[in-house]
Amino acid sequence: MEIAIENTLFISKKLLLNCIDFWFKFIVIIMESALYLIPNTLGDCNITNVLPTLNVDIIQKVKHFIVEDVRTARRFLKKVDPSINIDELEFFTLNKHTSPAELSSFLHPLEKGFDMGIISEAGCPAIADPGAEVVRIAQEKNLRVVPLVGPSSILLGLMASGFNGQSFAFVGYLPIQANERTQRIKQLEKRAKIENQSQIFIETPYRNHKLLDEILSTCQGNTKLCIACDITLDSEYIKTKSINEWKKIKLPDLNKRPAIFILY
Amino acid sequence: MEIAIENTLFISKKLLLNCIDFWFKFIVIIMESALYLIPNTLGDCNITNVLPTLNVDIIQKVKHFIVEDVRTARRFLKKVDPSINIDELEFFTLNKHTSPAELSSFLHPLEKGFDMGIISEAGCPAIADPGAEVVRIAQEKNLRVVPLVGPSSILLGLMASGFNGQSFAFVGYLPIQANERTQRIKQLEKRAKIENQSQIFIETPYRNHKLLDEILSTCQGNTKLCIACDITLDSEYIKTKSINEWKKIKLPDLNKRPAIFILY
Repeated sequence: MEIAIENTLFISKKLLLNCIDFWFKFIVIIMESALYLIPNTLGDCNITNVLPTLNVDIIQKVKHFIVEDVRTARRFLKKVDPSINIDELEFFTLNKHTSPAELSSFLHPLEKGFDMGIISEAGCPAIADPGAEVVRIAQEKNLRVVPLVGPSSILLGLMASGFNGQSFAFVGYLPIQANERTQRIKQLEKRAKIENQSQIFIETPYRNHKLLDEILSTCQGNTKLCIACDITLDSEYIKTKSINEWKKIKLPDLNKRPAIFILY
Repeated sequence: MEIAIENTLFISKKLLLNCIDFWFKFIVIIMESALYLIPNTLGDCNITNVLPTLNVDIIQKVKHFIVEDVRTARRFLKKVDPSINIDELEFFTLNKHTSPAELSSFLHPLEKGFDMGIISEAGCPAIADPGAEVVRIAQEKNLRVVPLVGPSSILLGLMASGFNGQSFAFVGYLPIQANERTQRIKQLEKRAKIENQSQIFIETPYRNHKLLDEILSTCQGNTKLCIACDITLDSEYIKTKSINEWKKIKLPDLNKRPAIFILY
């Protein structure tokens, strides 16, 4: 009788341990699943030039992606791993037409314990890119967010400018209206000098030349300007000169090339 | 006679072409040589997690390095490629004791046509790091500067924060004096709200807890704070909460761990 009870207890203990083990593994899986922020290249270049191999490993295990454009995301994934089976992947499209309710629902697979990835159209997700809104929701829901290393034209441009990297600001696009735009350039130039803070901004590629002309006609001669374009590509161009120096030389052809401007 | 002259001319042409070819190749070599900005890991992790293989290829061909600490730079190079012959490499030490004259002389190998590399102690050279001064000189001398991709705790922290990535500023360390420090925190909080600009700053790791206490007691309850520490390491921690929420939970142990703070 005593032996029988002991045996029964023994089996129950084993069951209990199995149960605990199962739940523990389940919780670990849930906890370990993450929203990976997957950088893209900055243009046509080898994946191995700009992405660590960890990114490839993660891309291979993720099945649910949040992307700006499904077609270009597919192309990127195929470039990273030609053997990838695109048909078994789920894509959620994030752009300016995505409603907040829809956006929140994008994270359902992650909440169920599946890894997810946000892929940017170029560079790092959530930097000058709509991905930040999804990350905000993931943080609110206390989900794990893991940023992966990749190229950021903002950071790479700043590194190569020779400007202050102890204090810098990225301010995105300048206003479109002419007067406001000139005022903004003057304001950025002033902040660069007073606060000793490098000021980084961008423009739609086909308007680069117009912006460059405006900078050259608005800023003081001794203000420094770094022009960085086609970063990480074969045609990479990154030069720093004073406004006076830029005025004396033949300007680079920036038309339709992604560029970064930095004042200091 | 005519044939002889023709032959002579023919040889001269060939010689001339050879000469032109030689000088062209020489100029290309000189032009192609670059100052590579080589990022380091952010702590103890696999190289392949955070650095593209291009970086390894470049490290293998560069023989002249500008570094903050020769000992740690050697260790990094050995980790990147255990077969590297450290003894054939030249190191220039760049720190707060380096004079401007010395600094300028560091670039002599580059001016002679040899590739050079700047290696940071952690993360990206020239970002919150003395390397920017060498890059400034290289740009002044119109030398080629090539930034390589690698981990930046500033950028990775911002990506994972869910904060505004269309406008952000990194402001380095806060003032040490208590009053100034409180004022600075308030000023950053105000700028984050008025300019809709994420404000990123850092602290010496052993003072992280003191800074966190100051932020929590200085900022408004609805201000958001992202704490990111040990980025890219196994112990990575990146969480965004409002000041009120942070006050209610057990705070993470940040002591002696490299951390990034972001207000928004």
